[in-house]
Amino acid sequence: MTERVVLAYSGGLDTSVAIPYLADKMGAEVIAVAVDLGQGGEDMAVIRQRALDCGAVESEVIDAKDEFAADYCLPAVKSNALYMDRYPLLSSLSRPLIVKHLVEAAKRHGGTVVSHGCTGKGNDQVRFEVGIGALAPDLKVVAPARDFAWTRDKAIALAEEKGLPIDVSHKSPYSIDQNLWGRAVETGFLEDIWNAPIEDLYSYTANPAQPRDADEVVITFEGGVPVAIDGQTVTPYQAIAELNRRAGAQGVGRLDMVEDRLVGIKSREVYEAPGAIALITAHQELENVTVERDVARFKKGVDQRWAELVYDGLWFSPLRYALDAFVADTQKYVSGDIRLTLHGGRAVVTGRRSEASLYDFNLATYDTGDTFDQSLAKGFVQLWGLPSRIAAARDARIR
Amino acid sequence: MTERVVLAYSGGLDTSVAIPYLADKMGAEVIAVAVDLGQGGEDMAVIRQRALDCGAVESEVIDAKDEFAADYCLPAVKSNALYMDRYPLLSSLSRPLIVKHLVEAAKRHGGTVVSHGCTGKGNDQVRFEVGIGALAPDLKVVAPARDFAWTRDKAIALAEEKGLPIDVSHKSPYSIDQNLWGRAVETGFLEDIWNAPIEDLYSYTANPAQPRDADEVVITFEGGVPVAIDGQTVTPYQAIAELNRRAGAQGVGRLDMVEDRLVGIKSREVYEAPGAIALITAHQELENVTVERDVARFKKGVDQRWAELVYDGLWFSPLRYALDAFVADTQKYVSGDIRLTLHGGRAVVTGRRSEASLYDFNLATYDTGDTFDQSLAKGFVQLWGLPSRIAAARDARIR
Amino acid sequence: MTERVVLAYSGGLDTSVAIPYLADKMGAEVIAVAVDLGQGGEDMAVIRQRALDCGAVESEVIDAKDEFAADYCLPAVKSNALYMDRYPLLSSLSRPLIVKHLVEAAKRHGGTVVSHGCTGKGNDQVRFEVGIGALAPDLKVVAPARDFAWTRDKAIALAEEKGLPIDVSHKSPYSIDQNLWGRAVETGFLEDIWNAPIEDLYSYTANPAQPRDADEVVITFEGGVPVAIDGQTVTPYQAIAELNRRAGAQGVGRLDMVEDRLVGIKSREVYEAPGAIALITAHQELENVTVERDVARFKKGVDQRWAELVYDGLWFSPLRYALDAFVADTQKYVSGDIRLTLHGGRAVVTGRRSEASLYDFNLATYDTGDTFDQSLAKGFVQLWGLPSRIAAARDARIR
Amino acid sequence: MTERVVLAYSGGLDTSVAIPYLADKMGAEVIAVAVDLGQGGEDMAVIRQRALDCGAVESEVIDAKDEFAADYCLPAVKSNALYMDRYPLLSSLSRPLIVKHLVEAAKRHGGTVVSHGCTGKGNDQVRFEVGIGALAPDLKVVAPARDFAWTRDKAIALAEEKGLPIDVSHKSPYSIDQNLWGRAVETGFLEDIWNAPIEDLYSYTANPAQPRDADEVVITFEGGVPVAIDGQTVTPYQAIAELNRRAGAQGVGRLDMVEDRLVGIKSREVYEAPGAIALITAHQELENVTVERDVARFKKGVDQRWAELVYDGLWFSPLRYALDAFVADTQKYVSGDIRLTLHGGRAVVTGRRSEASLYDFNLATYDTGDTFDQSLAKGFVQLWGLPSRIAAARDARIR
Repeated sequence: MTERVVLAYSGGLDTSVAIPYLADKMGAEVIAVAVDLGQGGEDMAVIRQRALDCGAVESEVIDAKDEFAADYCLPAVKSNALYMDRYPLLSSLSRPLIVKHLVEAAKRHGGTVVSHGCTGKGNDQVRFEVGIGALAPDLKVVAPARDFAWTRDKAIALAEEKGLPIDVSHKSPYSIDQNLWGRAVETGFLEDIWNAPIEDLYSYTANPAQPRDADEVVITFEGGVPVAIDGQTVTPYQAIAELNRRAGAQGVGRLDMVEDRLVGIKSREVYEAPGAIALITAHQELENVTVERDVARFKKGVDQRWAELVYDGLWFSPLRYALDAFVADTQKYVSGDIRLTLHGGRAVVTGRRSEASLYDFNLATYDTGDTFDQSLAKGFVQLWGLPSRIAAARDARIR
Repeated sequence: MTERVVLAYSGGLDTSVAIPYLADKMGAEVIAVAVDLGQGGEDMAVIRQRALDCGAVESEVIDAKDEFAADYCLPAVKSNALYMDRYPLLSSLSRPLIVKHLVEAAKRHGGTVVSHGCTGKGNDQVRFEVGIGALAPDLKVVAPARDFAWTRDKAIALAEEKGLPIDVSHKSPYSIDQNLWGRAVETGFLEDIWNAPIEDLYSYTANPAQPRDADEVVITFEGGVPVAIDGQTVTPYQAIAELNRRAGAQGVGRLDMVEDRLVGIKSREVYEAPGAIALITAHQELENVTVERDVARFKKGVDQRWAELVYDGLWFSPLRYALDAFVADTQKYVSGDIRLTLHGGRAVVTGRRSEASLYDFNLATYDTGDTFDQSLAKGFVQLWGLPSRIAAARDARIR
Repeated sequence: MTERVVLAYSGGLDTSVAIPYLADKMGAEVIAVAVDLGQGGEDMAVIRQRALDCGAVESEVIDAKDEFAADYCLPAVKSNALYMDRYPLLSSLSRPLIVKHLVEAAKRHGGTVVSHGCTGKGNDQVRFEVGIGALAPDLKVVAPARDFAWTRDKAIALAEEKGLPIDVSHKSPYSIDQNLWGRAVETGFLEDIWNAPIEDLYSYTANPAQPRDADEVVITFEGGVPVAIDGQTVTPYQAIAELNRRAGAQGVGRLDMVEDRLVGIKSREVYEAPGAIALITAHQELENVTVERDVARFKKGVDQRWAELVYDGLWFSPLRYALDAFVADTQKYVSGDIRLTLHGGRAVVTGRRSEASLYDFNLATYDTGDTFDQSLAKGFVQLWGLPSRIAAARDARIR
Repeated sequence: MTERVVLAYSGGLDTSVAIPYLADKMGAEVIAVAVDLGQGGEDMAVIRQRALDCGAVESEVIDAKDEFAADYCLPAVKSNALYMDRYPLLSSLSRPLIVKHLVEAAKRHGGTVVSHGCTGKGNDQVRFEVGIGALAPDLKVVAPARDFAWTRDKAIALAEEKGLPIDVSHKSPYSIDQNLWGRAVETGFLEDIWNAPIEDLYSYTANPAQPRDADEVVITFEGGVPVAIDGQTVTPYQAIAELNRRAGAQGVGRLDMVEDRLVGIKSREVYEAPGAIALITAHQELENVTVERDVARFKKGVDQRWAELVYDGLWFSPLRYALDAFVADTQKYVSGDIRLTLHGGRAVVTGRRSEASLYDFNLATYDTGDTFDQSLAKGFVQLWGLPSRIAAARDARIR
């Protein structure tokens, strides 16, 4: 029986050329699977047809936008997931969901091989292959760009040779990945890390430096996830899409950083993620109000590890599940409203209110109504500092 | 012999009234010590005279601006010290230095008691008293506001009764602390955490929403600390002061948060710290370029603990010293230039260059010159994911 | 109405004397509550009667042995809870359960005050009072030994004056606390930390130095908790009691350490906890077999924090709940058999088997059947070491 | 010019056969380097000659025993380095030192390739190659067992064919590695993890179950490292060798565990490390006496990470250097005497004394001389528990 290869298909040059290439090289039938994660751009039906035109025996488009929002983006909000304190993991979160759908498609179509377009020096190959190893260890994986040392030039030559229906003429100087959770731009002149990004790179965000009126938004959370915006109930997808629109219009969420890749090198990345940054900013402050201090301090380490794991391709790993259990427990009371001002590239919290608040006006106030018993403080301070005092006395004695 | 009390003197109502109060209550001589940490405001000579006018037997002003910048603020830069990811510790860093000078003054003047104006529900009492316990465990501490249950009304009454040279008529509704590293505002209408801050609160920063031209600055670091701005060599004090001015003029560094106090309550705080935020932002990105990945990941936990310790009053603690040793080792190569755009309340890194860079263009580029051997990736990915794959197979087998 | 004080009653001198003392001092009715946690020693009915004889208006004995084993000791097994890598938290685990029953008794009997016998320099006061603050913040707490500066001599004098039915003649030189989870001995000549413990101190464990035949035991775990011993199904209580007996007979579980108390001092403690040490030893090795590497590494920090929290009196704290959620997730597959040899003071694992094992003979063996693909290693090693290699090259270049 | 290969030479079958094999396969001259790390066994001069007899053009024996003790084992003591709380890293510590000498030998002899005998599924290949990559990135590495898929049978056949002076007749069923810091045994019947180790496996330790008299030893530390035993000044090497002898005679230091290898699999290992376990046990307790609580708590995470890094082959990594800086700072006052009883497989601390002790008899005692002010405790306890109390009240209110 002819082997069937399930290809993660984007509609772009590389994965389009991969269809006839894999068919030839492996004597296999290629099934193209495109997953809609809210990346926008081309019509998904067009993409689906293109795969067929390139020679795929089957071509599927899977609408995973709601699933992506609910099961991948919102856990990132609960964990305030910012790799290296900055990057909201937009590509990292999408790969495991694509893997899940590839594996399901392989089952549906009798595929025994899965293929993706990642190179050998990026993070995404890891996310694909660790995911496949966890979900379907029997599937083989082929990555033409890495395993057969492909280059863009070879791809273009092959596309022309095969007469594939792809426009290879206008090549973006950048490598771009985008979805509901944000947009990543790399390579080109950005590889010189002294070069500043230019306005041209951006598509999800307006120029923050341009004067405009501020926008104010109230986000309502329940159990750590957004459930309403300005009082209107929203689905997870709607929450993110709406904030992409409104925060993006104010230039919120642009990021430019040098980043530690899992494969051991540093790379320079430019991101824009207006909805993600607005949501995480709001969520963090709601945690400040509703999460107890020791939990908050410990959770920083958990959040950091969560982001590193997901960045490092370990979404389908036992540690991610266990960290999620910790996080889930901490989110039970992360409910309430956060008011954000979106303006000039900044998402600034200006108000918070919550039934579950641990902020106690009467304990905090220096005004009428103060219930804090200051006489307790002296004993507290003395014993709190006792170990340092004993150590300092020892140091003075010994030195 | 008459007991001598060394009082941390600010020139304000509470500590001014404390002079005759302590003298009466304790039958003691009061020595006022005002420490100049770049707080601005009144002339220090005026403050010095006021203490004498209130009855102090000695009054000293100590210029500790350079010491504060070099020995307290710059370590905070090396540790990217932001408590709860936000607060740059401006009061927390100042108290230990004030303690150091109080203890020295007590030695100079034969003081056996030290006094401060802190209340019993704030953090500063802890910073004062743990510090004194470590540096001079034999000194007694008196905190009139806490230990004798003082209130503002009592203070005003006493000031009027004694005819003290203090203007008690116009009382700020806020409690303010400020120094070179920033400015803190609390209480008043901010105690309702749904209320947004008003423009009136701010003094170190211009309104970020007001249109103006951007400012671009290049900060040069050596070993983790700023040594030049736009090519001009600067002292630590000059670096911070200059960035306060320039970043402040662009509205950079405003913060509004609910914060976990050491004494167990949550409080609402508004800060402005333009220089601190600009410096830490630049420093973090230079670390991204020059610090190895595993160090960077571990250092996040160290940085967090450093900020918590200093916030919690444990500047003079063995753990702070040991964390400093770790941090010092990591900063050896944190040298180079960071270009920042200051504009509209944002300090944005747009360029970085360093002799000590770990970013390797030839490993990172997808263009001509690529030296990364992609064939290594397959083995790496397989073994990297092996534990997850084995665990997933087990889970599938058992379930 | 007369106020009612619910007293945590041990039957010993201090809490017996506290009955008439509290009644007099507070004009209150005293209700004695003794909680049976498997401490052995005197008959609980005798203890109950003694409280009445000392003047309690009510006296209750609550059998909490099974609850203690299941809900307090077993979570400690799941977390491998050893404070400072040694102390199995025997007193720390018991106090929250006593608190729970005191609070329930207070509700039953209309008590408004709770009283305990702890001093002001130990950890147990914290465990009592933080627990009561969490479960019943309206209850007042009185600790005669601490709040009224009691001493043993005063207690004896009062006992004699009141003619209480207590034998005050033979006073142990040690302070002892014991329950199902172990036994703690402190004070006396042990306060000189150069002194070795003497055989006399021990009661749960035989002398390990005495020659005897070894005992071999197989403990079966399901989901992280012991469910059978040598094939016989056991309750949590039975598991611990049986291992106390068998491991104790072999001298397992003696501990002697200098320990960091929460109140800021170091103290010297001697413990014996044969069942606890045997169970935790077995559990740790079963985790080595069934828990994935990254989980295991992260869990060490969670386990440490869990033990610190419980030691520090924060059983009823949000962070303990969240850590428990993490731990629960990691224990799903911690099922299987561990064979232990108990002998000469040592509990040594000699075998492990599990349906849920992650140890894969075919991957591990160097013999026939080896399925590990060694060709993957080269790529792995290269990329694993890449960041170190880049950093070393930088260091060499710059130095 | 003929290429020169510097081979890490053990004198055993595999590396002996590698000499002619590499010479043939690569057309190279082979230089054998044997590093004496106190592994005992054969005479090093015999080993040196054997390499020449097998065809090496140069053969060197390097005495690195003192260097190993001082620069590799003692840092492990300071960090209480026990991977997975058990394994004292004996192989992990030795490989970087071997690498250092290989690199130096390569420079001396004009070598351009380095070779080692490790397989592709163990940890040692990583330690070798990451080390070489850091110290001498230009050296190529060849690992015949891994890169040319060698097996023992092939090695024996080649040895016989070449008539090499190696006795291939009596092959140990185990794979063994040993040096001053301990001895590791794996493979054979141990690969069935339900099998108990047999007495036959051990060589550094006597049977702990055999009755004999106890041995008592006093170890003196200065700055975290042993400097005297029973009052006699010792070098690092002598300290370890002496404790290997005395603790080994009492059966101390046997370990049997399932371990997480870096390459992603679990393996079963048996170790004996009498000196290492005695030293680390003593050192930990001296830290309990001399290290402040917060430092001790944080240091556990540092110690764990240190052990993981070294296990994972990252000795020559920036993070190890930075952790060492932290550890060095904590060891300044880890000076004093620890008395250990060595008996029946146990190393038990029975006494500790130190000029730098933080244990304060007067604060700790419940007897005459007590200086602890118990009145401070009430305030401490109240504020310590305040966050939990506020959270519990919130939970009760919301539920």
